[in-house]
Amino acid sequence: MSTPPSRKRKAVVLLSGGLDSTVSLWWALGRGFSCDALTFQYGQRHRRELTSARALARQAGVRLHVVRFALPWSGSSLTSRRKALPTRSAGKIGAGIPSTYVPGRNTIFLAFALSLADQIGAEALVIGANAVDYSGYPDCRGPYLRAFEKAARLGSKTGAEGGKLAVLAPLVNLTKAQIVRLGRKLRAPLEKTWSCYAGGRKPCGACDSCVLRDKGFIEAGE
Amino acid sequence: MSTPPSRKRKAVVLLSGGLDSTVSLWWALGRGFSCDALTFQYGQRHRRELTSARALARQAGVRLHVVRFALPWSGSSLTSRRKALPTRSAGKIGAGIPSTYVPGRNTIFLAFALSLADQIGAEALVIGANAVDYSGYPDCRGPYLRAFEKAARLGSKTGAEGGKLAVLAPLVNLTKAQIVRLGRKLRAPLEKTWSCYAGGRKPCGACDSCVLRDKGFIEAGE
Repeated sequence: MSTPPSRKRKAVVLLSGGLDSTVSLWWALGRGFSCDALTFQYGQRHRRELTSARALARQAGVRLHVVRFALPWSGSSLTSRRKALPTRSAGKIGAGIPSTYVPGRNTIFLAFALSLADQIGAEALVIGANAVDYSGYPDCRGPYLRAFEKAARLGSKTGAEGGKLAVLAPLVNLTKAQIVRLGRKLRAPLEKTWSCYAGGRKPCGACDSCVLRDKGFIEAGE
Repeated sequence: MSTPPSRKRKAVVLLSGGLDSTVSLWWALGRGFSCDALTFQYGQRHRRELTSARALARQAGVRLHVVRFALPWSGSSLTSRRKALPTRSAGKIGAGIPSTYVPGRNTIFLAFALSLADQIGAEALVIGANAVDYSGYPDCRGPYLRAFEKAARLGSKTGAEGGKLAVLAPLVNLTKAQIVRLGRKLRAPLEKTWSCYAGGRKPCGACDSCVLRDKGFIEAGE
């Protein structure tokens, strides 16, 4: 007897190795999706994220695809050591677009996710974008994600052939504290995630990403 | 006296080095845009396109940006030598999605164009997509391009700050013959363009792209 092919719906999950993307992966698994994870090397300051993404994908039992690209024109402090990372207080986060903004980043990430989805026949792209406790990036908000979903349907083989294709952003309207609580409920290994922009041995505790993360854990009562 | 900064509107033009993208570049220059050209190395069978793109950008006097990436999962015959290129008659082109389809390619290309546009403050992304004498790719059609434009506006710094951002596809509704005539009218160096998928010393004359191109020149009376 041969094993019947899996009938599970497939999803491509963007997995940076940070808190939000990890909770999103565990959310997709909890929803019954068969997941492929996708991560990027695009000249970040450090490779700590990739190490986390690999460990998390292994623990989740999903395949991790790594796409490498260079963005020669990016002036972001996330990819350039010449620029200082912003270290503002949490209260000020969200006022304007910060220097960590990588132009068009989520569009590039989602475009590659769409390509993989079209190749493997996945019907969902899962992204940990968050518009509440967010860093002021324009490509983390619901209206943008819905517009990309429409383009993805129209511009893919899956969509052109009448198949389903959705962009799912389960965290888009949650606070960081709610994300921490959801992660605990889903038994996601939050201690293995990496959020710090700087990427030393330990999180710096001062960058926007650390500040938001710490605030989330504190507000979740941890 | 110092020279005043240029007030010309900027555009990012996708330039593969083929006929359509070259005519699009000359069209954008004719419309008065200050252009940056963008091309990709993503594991194509050959580098002949890149050579053409460099020569064309030089002749146009525009800067050419090259983005390299790998698409490990692409099963396209354009990027895999294991698959045969389709060599159908022109009459059959357009019936279904052919093996040269690279999943999500135009979305990936436009996403990088958006990133560059957001970095340099360009207000237009110019793409030589064509939905008439086309090869059956879902991401070459008007509704897809308009949906991407909306996502680009919502997901970019330029759009978020109220700036203009348009996706311009000047060839989308033209036949290949009309594209050839437009190219001649704009004095674009069509003889320097390269369309063949195979990439030898001379065009193969048999792949979809050669067949469409030859048909265009013949119908334009050349």
